[in-house]
Parts: sequence; structure tokens; C-alpha cells
Amino acid sequence: MNLIILEPRKITPLYIQLYNYYKKQIEENKLQQSEKLPSIRGLAKDLSISKITVEKAYQQLASEGYIDNCDRSRYTVNKLDGFISKVTPLLIDHSYQNGTMIQTSKVLYDFSSGEMDIDGFDFSLWKRYVSKAFLHKERLVSYGNIKGEEELRTEIAKYIQKSRGVYTHSSQIIIGAGVQNLLSILCSILKLENNSIAFEEPGFKNGRRIFADNAFSIKPIKMKKDGIDMEELFSSGENLVYVSPSHQFPTGYIMPIGRRNQLLNWAKAKNGTIIEDDYDSEFRYYGRPIPALKGLDTMGNVVYLGSFSKVIPPSIRISYMVLPEKFLDIYQKKSSLYNQAASTIEQLALAQFMSDGHLERQIRKLRKLYYEKSRLFFDAIKNILGENVEVNANESGLHTILTVKSKLQARELVEKALQHGCRVAPVEDYYWEVAPQKLPQIILYFSKIPAAEMRTAMKRLKDAWFM
Amino acid sequence: MNLIILEPRKITPLYIQLYNYYKKQIEENKLQQSEKLPSIRGLAKDLSISKITVEKAYQQLASEGYIDNCDRSRYTVNKLDGFISKVTPLLIDHSYQNGTMIQTSKVLYDFSSGEMDIDGFDFSLWKRYVSKAFLHKERLVSYGNIKGEEELRTEIAKYIQKSRGVYTHSSQIIIGAGVQNLLSILCSILKLENNSIAFEEPGFKNGRRIFADNAFSIKPIKMKKDGIDMEELFSSGENLVYVSPSHQFPTGYIMPIGRRNQLLNWAKAKNGTIIEDDYDSEFRYYGRPIPALKGLDTMGNVVYLGSFSKVIPPSIRISYMVLPEKFLDIYQKKSSLYNQAASTIEQLALAQFMSDGHLERQIRKLRKLYYEKSRLFFDAIKNILGENVEVNANESGLHTILTVKSKLQARELVEKALQHGCRVAPVEDYYWEVAPQKLPQIILYFSKIPAAEMRTAMKRLKDAWFM
Repeated sequence: MNLIILEPRKITPLYIQLYNYYKKQIEENKLQQSEKLPSIRGLAKDLSISKITVEKAYQQLASEGYIDNCDRSRYTVNKLDGFISKVTPLLIDHSYQNGTMIQTSKVLYDFSSGEMDIDGFDFSLWKRYVSKAFLHKERLVSYGNIKGEEELRTEIAKYIQKSRGVYTHSSQIIIGAGVQNLLSILCSILKLENNSIAFEEPGFKNGRRIFADNAFSIKPIKMKKDGIDMEELFSSGENLVYVSPSHQFPTGYIMPIGRRNQLLNWAKAKNGTIIEDDYDSEFRYYGRPIPALKGLDTMGNVVYLGSFSKVIPPSIRISYMVLPEKFLDIYQKKSSLYNQAASTIEQLALAQFMSDGHLERQIRKLRKLYYEKSRLFFDAIKNILGENVEVNANESGLHTILTVKSKLQARELVEKALQHGCRVAPVEDYYWEVAPQKLPQIILYFSKIPAAEMRTAMKRLKDAWFM
Repeated sequence: MNLIILEPRKITPLYIQLYNYYKKQIEENKLQQSEKLPSIRGLAKDLSISKITVEKAYQQLASEGYIDNCDRSRYTVNKLDGFISKVTPLLIDHSYQNGTMIQTSKVLYDFSSGEMDIDGFDFSLWKRYVSKAFLHKERLVSYGNIKGEEELRTEIAKYIQKSRGVYTHSSQIIIGAGVQNLLSILCSILKLENNSIAFEEPGFKNGRRIFADNAFSIKPIKMKKDGIDMEELFSSGENLVYVSPSHQFPTGYIMPIGRRNQLLNWAKAKNGTIIEDDYDSEFRYYGRPIPALKGLDTMGNVVYLGSFSKVIPPSIRISYMVLPEKFLDIYQKKSSLYNQAASTIEQLALAQFMSDGHLERQIRKLRKLYYEKSRLFFDAIKNILGENVEVNANESGLHTILTVKSKLQARELVEKALQHGCRVAPVEDYYWEVAPQKLPQIILYFSKIPAAEMRTAMKRLKDAWFM
């Protein structure tokens, strides 16, 4: 046996020095399988250290499986099965490191995302609510209510009743960290009855993805100006459909009341289910918000999905869904398998923020801000892009679709825009099947473009596409 | 046509009164399909209101699909398709309302969850970090980096290198709102190559659930005292496995180094993938933490999953995974389909908290707290439950498994414990297939039981089961 040199003045504790020594001996095969280690008492005496030190070192080696004391007397070396002796740090591919960042730095104007205007939210007010929520210490040390905090569910019930005509009870509301999180849970309920889903085409791709991940087959149903094509839906034979009737994503179409009734009657006839994604209904700039389909749902066939990501900063990840009664029992049985994913402190802060009337104020403020911005936006399109594009200027939401009169493909337009400092997204990305071969279409959001720079930003698009 | 009575002094704006009037007329079929509405100018004159008021009312009706002006001259009533005229609020089943709460109120001691000791975290310190994070206003108005905030990924890379021997780069780290959230994303990558997964039996049920939801077939592999049964794994033909080698959940077994090497060699031979769930490795009370399997992974076959839910309050939903290089390209392509679900402000706060050394201090503090508690816990089991139970007292983590010498079924023991104010969970819940018919087994966590009441709590279990 080699000499063991321990260094008592080293910062590494003695037992770790001893542990390291034996570990190395075993890994380098200097101590082999079934070989005995010195007795604890003996080694302690030899090295003039305490028995406890030796014991700790041996216990650590045993915990990690290097040695064992099966016969309770002496520790022996275990079989190590082709130990990979040279543990080297993994080689790193640094090309990923700043991938996103490099791209971001080139983008001056981001038309591709409905993120919030930086002046759109009073962070100092929000901070006060976050601070107050720290009083609920007992709840913060726990995983939180699996459905979401009760206060917030109560406030949401009040809010959607008032603003969306949806009458429900907090017990039917489930909170999640974004719509995808909620859809994952919903899929586990729906798959008991369904293995396929009809989906608006084009439609909300990140929602559709969750169904595909959950092994649903996707049946795209084409969009018409008055909503999803009912004939196609009927003939598809599906009895589950995903729609965004208040402001279809991405087309922006609004489903008229007649089509809404047709859809509800379809669900009634088929004993089917409609998933209503009501992602930006707060932003109607003329008149009142379109009432939710869920508000007309007397049969309990509509699952309602709402999100706060457009009205408060989306970095606060809170969405919700209203389950109809027919799914409550199944949900109740499965709920313990899905942890609540939204931050408790943000849930509690939002509940009080809503209760004090700040959400309504915030929505009014944003609606005004975005209304003004939308006018600048559509004016800029008209005056700067002019006849080169067709635009579906509707009165809702934070985005529109441009049809670009260009021989270029949508992807080429995206690339050219990026070269001119503008990020845009092609509509074709929102198709499940191949997008129809027409003129290229681009989604443009205006929410993140500063009002004062709207024209400048639009000129860059013009330069990118038509110069 | 009926008389329209508008009330200018009512709080409801005139245009909404007008809108309500026509909406009702149409819904009650008093105005029928294709019937014309009065001209804007005419109606305004008749009612002595402004044209804008009439226009707003008509526009709202048109937006909702009640009327249309296809020929651009006069508005006509649309086809409504079997309108459900009596919209009544949904009936509510109040039995769900306080379901959870009623149950919770009976629970004096919760042995079923690894939630944190209420004195285990310095909330006032954390609050300061949350406040500081509000300075990043620009980032808070966005959806956030899809992989998670860069600062936090950098801190995590440092942390797992130091504490777990895992050498990686921040670009390989993905942050999520809990392990389930990350597993959903991981499934979408893994399913390109796999449609089934070998899983420890018993094992982490909420993780397994995500694979089942993603249509993976689950191949349970039984646990032995030295980790997953390698023979069974080999003969299963699987090349994807989920393990928790540092402290198997729920058995508490630690996978020895020999078995770790076998597992890595298995992955190498099969070009397979090991998912390592390292959920509570911080809590080794004797000796040093067991190094992670990922730290030995020279071939890049291990996906490493880590969580902060045991070291900071689990209401802060932040977990992470380390992707091996072989999955980075696929992830990069798919990443835009999955929104970041963890709160940005909590990510930024945690990054700075870690950078300032507070996480290490927090872990040391908790380790001490839980070490003391674990001694009280095991003493109480020995002295109070005594010969009535067998216990696998290991030196890690926040829980143990009790084998109860009772003729009752595990579920009956759970029920009896609840009647005595204690919540416990049966081990059989963690089996994918039917649990072996042996003596009933119960998981007991001690983390949430106040140290001073450990004996009292244990006496209640004794009363529940053996009196």
C-alpha cells in the first residue's frame, strides 16, 4: 500500500483528503475488486487521526458505491464495471452561446411580437403589490394551490363576468404559467374522449403544438372571413375544435354571432367541445368588446382560455382556463399529477391588483395607448407602403396581416426586413399544412414599436421590400 | 317598428342602449333576416341623437355579426342560425368550491410533501432581490429569453459545476417553470427517436405522467438497493431511461458508482439517453454530496434535470435542464414553439441571489435545519412507532419510506392518518404497474413538520395505526 499523505493545514478537510486518496486508488485500479481496505481503527492509529475521520471517508466512498461492508466487518472494493477514468469537462460548442443575442442586436424594430410598450405598465405600482404579497409567508413556502391561488381565481371570475359575459365560479377556473401549460393539462382530460382536433388554419401554432405533442392528430379547417368554415368542420367528423372567435389569430377575423350560434349548435349536436382562445379581446378600439362565445354557452361545451400577457407584461406568466362542468370530475382526479407552474407571489400580487381596480385602469390606459398607436401604424402603412401592400385594417388587437405585392417569397421578405433592422414573421408559419400559394403574407404587430418611430420603422420596411 | 326609448341620464352610454335595443329585437326575432335597419342619418334625426352614436351602435352590432352592410348602403339583419335566446349563467356545482380547503383544514401535520420549513427561508432578503430585479424594466415587458434569462443560466452553470461536478455551458441550460414544464419540451425532442421510455419502478409519478401524456409507452424497471435493475433494463430493449441516481425517488436508494458506470456504458453501447433527475442532492447530511451522473458523462448521453424547489420556496417555480450537445440543434429548431414559463422577475432575482453567494448560504442553513430535524424524525419513529414499522433510514433527503406492520391496506392507513390530522402518501401511488403485495408502505416527509412537534405528530400516527 502506498504512503498516504494527509495535510492537516490544508483547507480541504482531512476526511475528504482521505476519501480522495482511496477514490483515486480505486479508479486507477491500484485497489481492485474485493480487496479489503484497512480497518477503521487501524488506519486511524496509523495516520494519527480520529476514527470518526476515517469513518466519514469510508462512508462517503460507500455512499458513492466505491466500497461496501457487506459482511459488516471490513470495507472491500466494489466491482466498478469499466470505469471511465478520465472525466473531462464536456467540449462546448460556443456557436450557441450568443446565438440569440447576436441576432437581437441587429433588430431595431420588432414587428414580430405582441410584447408590451415599455411605457405601457406602471412598474412602481406593481412593485408595491408584489411587496404586499410577501406577507403571505405561509403560502410562499408551499407549492401553492394546484388550481392557482383562490383569491386570484375569484378575481378572474368577476373579471370575465363583467368584461366578457362569462358566468362561472372560481372552482371552475384553473391558473397556469401561460396557455401552453394549461393546454397540456387540458389535453390529458380531452384525450380520454378524443385523439384528434379541428384547428383553425392558419392558427395559433404554439397552442397547436401542444396538441400534436400530446399525440392528437390535427385536422386543419380553413378560415373564412366570417370565421371557421362550418361545412368543412361538419364534414371533418371531428367533435373537438380550437377557435379564437373574438379576433382570430393570425387573420384577425371576428366571428359573427350567426357563426357563433352555428358553432354552439354544432357542439350541442355532436356533444362536442369548443376551445375558445380569447387572447386579446381587451383591445377593441371601437365600441364594446365582442362577448365571448363562452358567454353564450348554455350547454357547457366551451372551454375558455384567457391570458394576461397582453394587458400586463408577459414576463408575468399567468393565464387561466374555465373548465365546463363536464370536465370537472376528471380534472379533480388528475389534478394532483400536474403541479401549479405559475409563481405564487405574482398570483397573489395580481389578485390584489385586480381587486383594487388597477387591472381595469391598466386596460383602459393600454387601450388608449394602442388605439393611438394603431392609427399611426395604419396611417404609416397607407402613406409609406401604399399600393405595394394590401392590409386588413380591423378594429381590434395589436397586429394585422400585410399582403405584399412582391415576387419574393415570404421568407425572403423576412430576411430582407431583418437586413434593414426589422423583425417580422411570415403568416405561412401559422399553417399546419402548406400555406396556399398566393402573394406573400406577413404579420405585423405594432405594440412594441415606439409611437414616435412608427414612420421611421415603416420606411425601413419599404426600403427592405420595394427599393 | 317599436318605440325606442333612450335614457340620456342613465349611466349606460346612449350607443349601448341603442345597441342593446336592436340586439334584443334581433334575438327575439322581431327583426328578421334580411330586414333593413333604419338609415343612420334617419335614425339619428328621429331620436335627436348624433349620427356618431347611431354609427357606433351599428358598428358594434356588425362586429358581433348581428347585422351587416354588404351593399354598403343600409345595414340588414344577418342569418342567426337557431339563436339560443335565453342566455343564462351556468349552474354552478358548489361542491367543488371548497373541496380542497375543507380537507386542508383537517390536516395538522403534512407528511406528504417536501415543502419547506416556514423558518427555512429569509423572505426579507429575497424581497430585496426581487425589488432589485425591477430595474430590468426593458426585459420585464417582454416574454423573456426563451431558454431563460442569461444571467441565471450562467449562475446555474457555475453552481452545478461546483456542487455537482457537472461541467457545462450556459447555452446548454434551459430554464422552466418546474420539471414537468421542462419534460414537456424534452419529450418533443426525444420523440423524434423514441416512443417508449424505461422508468424506475416505483418512480417520480408526475414526471412519468408527462411522458405518458406525450404518448410514450412506459416500461417500468424495478428498483434494487443498488439502483435500477440493469439486467431488466438491458433485456427491455429500451434506449431511453429516467433515473434519480443520487437519491432515488421514492425509495431513497443511492446508485453506487459501479452501477453508474454500468448505466453510462449501457447508454454508450446503445447510443441511448439517460435522464438524470437530481431533485434533492443538496441534502446529504453526512459527507459530501454524491457527484452527479452527468459529471461522469463523457459521451454526452445524459440529460440533467435540476430544481430549486427544495432549497428555495417551491412557490418560486424555477427548474433547469442541461441538454447534451446531441440535442442542441433539435432544441434550437423547436425552441420558438415553447414559451418560457418561468417568471422573469424571479429568474433575475435568483441570478443575483446566487451571484452574491446567498444560495450557498441558504443551502448550508437548510442542511443544518433538516439534519437536526431528520434526527428528531428518525428518533421519533424509533421511539414512538418502534417495532411496528421498518424504516430505511438513509442519510439524504427529506423523506423516508415506512413499511408498516399492519393488516390494513396502504389506503386505509392513509385514511386513518387523515382522521388523526396527518396527511401521508402511499408508496403504491408511485408505481406505474400494480405495486407488489407486501406490507403497506408509506412515504413520510419531515421537512414541513415543526421540529418541536415532531414527537406529537408521530404519536398521532401511532394512534391512527396501532391503537
